[in-house]
Amino acid sequence: MPERNDMQDQRPIIGLTMGDPAGIGPEVIVKALKNPDLIREARFVIHGANDILTLAADRLGIEPAWHRVPADNIDLAGRVSSDVIVRDHDHGGTLMNLPSEPSRRGGHASKAWVDAAISDAMRDATDPCAIDAVVTAPISKEAWHLAGHKWPGHTELLAYRAHARRTAMFFESPKLRVILATTHVPLMDLRNLLTIGCVFDPIDLGHQACLDLGIPAPRIAVAGLNPHAGESGLFGDEESRVIEPAVRMARDAGIDVHGPLPGDSVFREAIEGRWDLVVAMYHDQGLIPMKLAQHRSAVNWTVGLPFVRTSPDHGTAYGLAGMGKADPGSMEAAIRLATHLARHRVESRMNADAGEQNLPEG
Amino acid sequence: MPERNDMQDQRPIIGLTMGDPAGIGPEVIVKALKNPDLIREARFVIHGANDILTLAADRLGIEPAWHRVPADNIDLAGRVSSDVIVRDHDHGGTLMNLPSEPSRRGGHASKAWVDAAISDAMRDATDPCAIDAVVTAPISKEAWHLAGHKWPGHTELLAYRAHARRTAMFFESPKLRVILATTHVPLMDLRNLLTIGCVFDPIDLGHQACLDLGIPAPRIAVAGLNPHAGESGLFGDEESRVIEPAVRMARDAGIDVHGPLPGDSVFREAIEGRWDLVVAMYHDQGLIPMKLAQHRSAVNWTVGLPFVRTSPDHGTAYGLAGMGKADPGSMEAAIRLATHLARHRVESRMNADAGEQNLPEG
Repeated sequence: MPERNDMQDQRPIIGLTMGDPAGIGPEVIVKALKNPDLIREARFVIHGANDILTLAADRLGIEPAWHRVPADNIDLAGRVSSDVIVRDHDHGGTLMNLPSEPSRRGGHASKAWVDAAISDAMRDATDPCAIDAVVTAPISKEAWHLAGHKWPGHTELLAYRAHARRTAMFFESPKLRVILATTHVPLMDLRNLLTIGCVFDPIDLGHQACLDLGIPAPRIAVAGLNPHAGESGLFGDEESRVIEPAVRMARDAGIDVHGPLPGDSVFREAIEGRWDLVVAMYHDQGLIPMKLAQHRSAVNWTVGLPFVRTSPDHGTAYGLAGMGKADPGSMEAAIRLATHLARHRVESRMNADAGEQNLPEG
Repeated sequence: MPERNDMQDQRPIIGLTMGDPAGIGPEVIVKALKNPDLIREARFVIHGANDILTLAADRLGIEPAWHRVPADNIDLAGRVSSDVIVRDHDHGGTLMNLPSEPSRRGGHASKAWVDAAISDAMRDATDPCAIDAVVTAPISKEAWHLAGHKWPGHTELLAYRAHARRTAMFFESPKLRVILATTHVPLMDLRNLLTIGCVFDPIDLGHQACLDLGIPAPRIAVAGLNPHAGESGLFGDEESRVIEPAVRMARDAGIDVHGPLPGDSVFREAIEGRWDLVVAMYHDQGLIPMKLAQHRSAVNWTVGLPFVRTSPDHGTAYGLAGMGKADPGSMEAAIRLATHLARHRVESRMNADAGEQNLPEG
């Protein structure tokens, strides 16, 4: 049996986390991995529960085509040759038949899977368990809280575990790209949270992300905070006090960035092709246009981490779970983007390996 | 010459204000009134400057088909039979050749035209100068400020002049209807401004507006203020403290209203047909989806006034002015909605007149 890190196999290894076991995560993963285009481009390691995945596959009439490996069997994991490996975490069958709602058990398990995937993503590329990217299925923040995990979401946990000083949520779709200056915070807290650095960072990270996507000279727009971007100071001073200085800093750093521009026109302009990326000041400002413009095919990309991490733009959708109706489109798009971004990491590794081979023997 | 308030003519009289003379207002009015469908359904009285309108028509190669009446000639105004009358305010030619930017002169003139139209709309229906609705072309708030008028916009001036205790901005379009709980205020001021009444009023006014539009049982959704509508209190307490009580009050009053619902999904649901109206908590939350879903055909309707008032959803667009490229679609939609809503006022007047005729003579 050839080793997984076979020199011949240049496909990146994408780590998937199963998300909340009572949500639609297992279903969209099983459906997405039926897509031969995705398997052609990447190999997969799923952190989750094998019984739940098998149940999801059974319900969908899909043959489970993966290789199960106990999650704690680290030695084995890296040496199995299979397009899809399930790293099966032992929950003693306690996740089967959870009600379709946030639960302590579901929160505990889905948190553990994300932790395991982060560990794998932080491994040295030569480690047999290393993965090249993480794609996370949706978790329930309420379930995480029930399990005692006080993280507002994946992004904050990832940033902490990866010791990333600056991260941001980037939303990629064919029609519109958005990056957020602030995320899961009470809207009225922006009074204190919105600083010059907090606006500069997503401009800078977003610029780099656009370059990574292959956009040679990204044109970036920054939305205002207030109605009509404050209309020359008539409604609020954050534009002149915070946003304008951040935009100037970024322009001084050579970034082609403009604003602050009125929120109600800048997203329309981006969709019409005027901007490659819009920097939104807060969650709803960026996510309302994103979900309107690009339903079920937008991808959430956490930029600023030392590894690639993407996720679909939908939630656990408990109401849909187990019905076989969940759309895997956004999960497929998340896997496709992660694969695209991870490829250069694999190429670096290949080049390093080739370099070692060329060393004189002895 | 038959009188304007001819018994045979059942068309409502729509008052138009010309908007900032250096913006695209004159152009979109001239273009819209070329549409024979609009003239078939209504008569028009334009408050503005005849020289500017004539210039706009000349540039477009359109024959000025209106009847000019000096604005202060009140007696005459009501007795001219013409599909379109221009109530020409005397500015001594000082508005010609204004630069395409906010100016004191433009602000002074555009404010005076709105004031005149409000006066006409407040007249008793039997007054020869009475109008049945007001459609306002875009003004520049900055120009109004330069002219010493401190109104944040049309809506606030209209509410004050009409002694309306509760008004709201309602946006009507084929795909999406939105009403705003707050409008032209700094976003961070919502901490103090967003009260239970401030959320209840647009639910109540929006419900009545939907009935006026002919929707028999309006289904209304209320957006949350915070990300994910606060996600059960994890991000902010305005949902439980303010929005939920307002929704309960409205439900108790018999309104079919739901929420608070996450901003990033509720507008999508409305476009998919789940809701007839969404109540947005602030300007950008409502206007971002409106301008994305319905570009150039959305209409702004001020609900809660004692008369009908609509306007196009675009601004002065100084950059486009004088180039002949402005799209009159939103102005036409504003006129069409005003005509539709004003018709029942005319019908009431006709019925009253008929009643008087039927009185025994002597």
